[in-house]
Amino acid sequence: MSTAAADLLRTIVGRKVYDLEQPRLAGMPIHPAHKPGYVYQLHRRHKDGYDPRRSGPRSSASGILVMMEHTGTHIDALSHQAADLHLYGGIEVTPQVETPKGFTVHGIETMAPIVTRGVLLDVCALKGKDPLPPHYRITASDLEAAARLTGVTVRPGDALLVRTGYGTVWGDETLYLSAAGVSREGSEWAAEHRVQCAGCDNMTWDETEERDPATGGMLFAHLHLIARSGIPIVENLQLEELSRDRVSEFLFICTPLKLVGATGSPVRPIAIV
Amino acid sequence: MSTAAADLLRTIVGRKVYDLEQPRLAGMPIHPAHKPGYVYQLHRRHKDGYDPRRSGPRSSASGILVMMEHTGTHIDALSHQAADLHLYGGIEVTPQVETPKGFTVHGIETMAPIVTRGVLLDVCALKGKDPLPPHYRITASDLEAAARLTGVTVRPGDALLVRTGYGTVWGDETLYLSAAGVSREGSEWAAEHRVQCAGCDNMTWDETEERDPATGGMLFAHLHLIARSGIPIVENLQLEELSRDRVSEFLFICTPLKLVGATGSPVRPIAIV
Amino acid sequence: MSTAAADLLRTIVGRKVYDLEQPRLAGMPIHPAHKPGYVYQLHRRHKDGYDPRRSGPRSSASGILVMMEHTGTHIDALSHQAADLHLYGGIEVTPQVETPKGFTVHGIETMAPIVTRGVLLDVCALKGKDPLPPHYRITASDLEAAARLTGVTVRPGDALLVRTGYGTVWGDETLYLSAAGVSREGSEWAAEHRVQCAGCDNMTWDETEERDPATGGMLFAHLHLIARSGIPIVENLQLEELSRDRVSEFLFICTPLKLVGATGSPVRPIAIV
Amino acid sequence: MSTAAADLLRTIVGRKVYDLEQPRLAGMPIHPAHKPGYVYQLHRRHKDGYDPRRSGPRSSASGILVMMEHTGTHIDALSHQAADLHLYGGIEVTPQVETPKGFTVHGIETMAPIVTRGVLLDVCALKGKDPLPPHYRITASDLEAAARLTGVTVRPGDALLVRTGYGTVWGDETLYLSAAGVSREGSEWAAEHRVQCAGCDNMTWDETEERDPATGGMLFAHLHLIARSGIPIVENLQLEELSRDRVSEFLFICTPLKLVGATGSPVRPIAIV
Repeated sequence: MSTAAADLLRTIVGRKVYDLEQPRLAGMPIHPAHKPGYVYQLHRRHKDGYDPRRSGPRSSASGILVMMEHTGTHIDALSHQAADLHLYGGIEVTPQVETPKGFTVHGIETMAPIVTRGVLLDVCALKGKDPLPPHYRITASDLEAAARLTGVTVRPGDALLVRTGYGTVWGDETLYLSAAGVSREGSEWAAEHRVQCAGCDNMTWDETEERDPATGGMLFAHLHLIARSGIPIVENLQLEELSRDRVSEFLFICTPLKLVGATGSPVRPIAIV
Repeated sequence: MSTAAADLLRTIVGRKVYDLEQPRLAGMPIHPAHKPGYVYQLHRRHKDGYDPRRSGPRSSASGILVMMEHTGTHIDALSHQAADLHLYGGIEVTPQVETPKGFTVHGIETMAPIVTRGVLLDVCALKGKDPLPPHYRITASDLEAAARLTGVTVRPGDALLVRTGYGTVWGDETLYLSAAGVSREGSEWAAEHRVQCAGCDNMTWDETEERDPATGGMLFAHLHLIARSGIPIVENLQLEELSRDRVSEFLFICTPLKLVGATGSPVRPIAIV
Repeated sequence: MSTAAADLLRTIVGRKVYDLEQPRLAGMPIHPAHKPGYVYQLHRRHKDGYDPRRSGPRSSASGILVMMEHTGTHIDALSHQAADLHLYGGIEVTPQVETPKGFTVHGIETMAPIVTRGVLLDVCALKGKDPLPPHYRITASDLEAAARLTGVTVRPGDALLVRTGYGTVWGDETLYLSAAGVSREGSEWAAEHRVQCAGCDNMTWDETEERDPATGGMLFAHLHLIARSGIPIVENLQLEELSRDRVSEFLFICTPLKLVGATGSPVRPIAIV
Repeated sequence: MSTAAADLLRTIVGRKVYDLEQPRLAGMPIHPAHKPGYVYQLHRRHKDGYDPRRSGPRSSASGILVMMEHTGTHIDALSHQAADLHLYGGIEVTPQVETPKGFTVHGIETMAPIVTRGVLLDVCALKGKDPLPPHYRITASDLEAAARLTGVTVRPGDALLVRTGYGTVWGDETLYLSAAGVSREGSEWAAEHRVQCAGCDNMTWDETEERDPATGGMLFAHLHLIARSGIPIVENLQLEELSRDRVSEFLFICTPLKLVGATGSPVRPIAIV
């Protein structure tokens, strides 16, 4: 056994693991663009194949899953967004790039597993409002103040997670879709810090009613982080436990499925401290 | 920042990460019980919503995914298998447990993220045949010898990965489905070592033609590991790179999606050294 | 050419054809038991394969449909309902009858095309209320009076269609699901008349809030017509045009798809006069 | 009761009805462009909701259907094919016409129910080969001779059905996909006769290996009948019974589902004599 591996295992195994995924089930909040969104149904049941005389005591059960890739806790591929019909890196959206089976460039299968330092900016803790008011727009100053509050610094390559407190209302679509989100300047702040990915405990990271006065566009971060800066966004995170334990710095691990050509993937990110 | 987190990050960030997932796409090998298995199709394309005068330069694209949960690289939930109509832990398969929406006990959402020591037993390296012959049954002695070959010891709580070499023929369903697998006694050996999970670079872990003479049953490990021992199986792993680099011990991370009630989940396991 | 065929064609071709199907689209009303119900998405578009130099001027487009079989205008197979776990005809619901792939008895593929006399009982016209009040329960007397009103007689083998007037609010799920329906005694009346099938311009034929005092059960007609009398129900009919033209007797044609094992089928019934 | 309706019913009710649909099930032949094509799975079973004390003797079962619209016996909408990126009638394929949710022009919901004279040209009977040789190309002369053989005349507005004999090998995808089909000139003959729709007992009507020397294109009828002549094609018909009974003229009824925006619909056409 290598010394390096031994050292690694000694350091990490047994640490506390935080689960940052919301449960997936029919009835969870779905963005209108991705309705109907999600269904899982069991079709094969244990008794169906149970025939102990012929084939022993074993039986099995299984189901079918239909989902849009932007439902539940998920990460956006860089192909999900374009700026003036160009993907990140100046890739023009041509028929060779965008096909019925998905993207041949920046499909989610091209995204490496994310294993990096994670930072939580708990804006609820900063503001003393949990959750934040509906449609509150988190400013760059909020993000800086939230970082200062816990003495954490956002560095290039980090996974930057922002908490609005709306992870607690996952069972209430109307309320969840009225969540606070990050403002335009907040997203610019994130881009300037050259984070590896950005995540939030709401549906879109962005505050959904803010319109960019310069262009008339909504969902500024989807343009600025994904299409212009190459920074994927993780949506619908569950950040309650991290907040409760006042964890602001951690090992962040997120492994998108290699759904070839897809514009995103469901994920179960974890934080380890 | 806590000293513990700093130590953790210093130890792990920058390490080599091995991606153990096969790519997911229509046409990948599918077990007959789970056909048609997998389809992803892009429906919303960038030009559809592109309207720069009204809403700025941003556009988005997205798709629909239909899949059986036992396709591609995936982990079996404990609800996937039963022994005499009881799930692991003596849970009887009643209508309260097994519902149209999935299982209320041992659904995949109840499985914690796996963060543990991983061990690779490269039976191809041992036998000097890569891949192993079709339908070769890996014995307990093979597993012990493969461990000795690299000086690694399988311990309770480990993720035990076994390599048949069939990960290279992922593009050829017929050949892939004729893979070598672990024999009945090999699976008993794994259970005796009280591993946390077992994984293989074939469709089933089990060698698919072996019949248990005692019961007449096939897929012995599905009965013995999952239903009787509570040890989930990870299938369709990609172990080629680990083998090439002669890595036999590593940090293994696998985060099943919390598909409520489902009998398994697609995963992208990683190995870090 | 046979004289019989010539006679048939002379009689029917050129007649007025009424279309009794509601349009199918995401967002149409869906019964809660069948959510999310329906999605159609185009994935292959004309430009994708257009390559005139190599393969001429032709191109094609196609999509994917995901639906529960009880959405939109549809007919219930006899396997859809059971009475004390027996299908119509005393067929016990055993694992041989009810499988993961559907029913081996009374699957919708066993239902012959329906070509029969149709009768419309327009209860709105009778009551002078269009639509009927929400949750109004149509009585046997209402049905008799509606028949008398237009001088039509319901005979064995007929397709019996009942109009509530809710076909006009197909775009409003909440309102549509509050529709009037046929009461318990109205359904008994239909069964006594030994009709071939029963249809209504609401989600269930039955009035959805009526509870059978004898058993505590809801949806009495689903029990009494389908499971006990072998009379299938057609739901979500569009009867507005027939009503407008005061058509009470017609040729009714309804051709369920042979979805092997399924418990129902989408249909586009027509009335010809 | 109107005299007209009475006359109609007297003429038609009780006539022999031929079912022209192939059974739909997983494993049926699917065109490569529409794989995986079809799955139906039962998820809700009768015992799941059976609770006689609380809610009486009734229980219900239902399933989920995933299908491409060009599987099984189906009719092609005019939006399915384009000539130089124009749909029938000179409609340019713009983003307004072709959307992620389907077509806003020539979607299948715009096709009226088909109630017309049907004619069967049984080329097998003509050639004394049943089925015809694989990939045999049915010529215009064949069609004319087949018509003469039974003394039937093809008229404008007819449903023109052509029999290759491959309807008997629906269970064998490889053989079925090697079927005979109509040649380029045969399709021109059909167009010249200004039929209302064209149908065949193979996957494509067209013979699949014929290349148009003028353009390099395949599937000439898809271009010429659908995109240029506005004549929809019905595929995968079951014509065996009509042939056995030597029926060459009949009432043809085909009612496409109003799947809004879709490029085709599954159908169960019938012939009445």
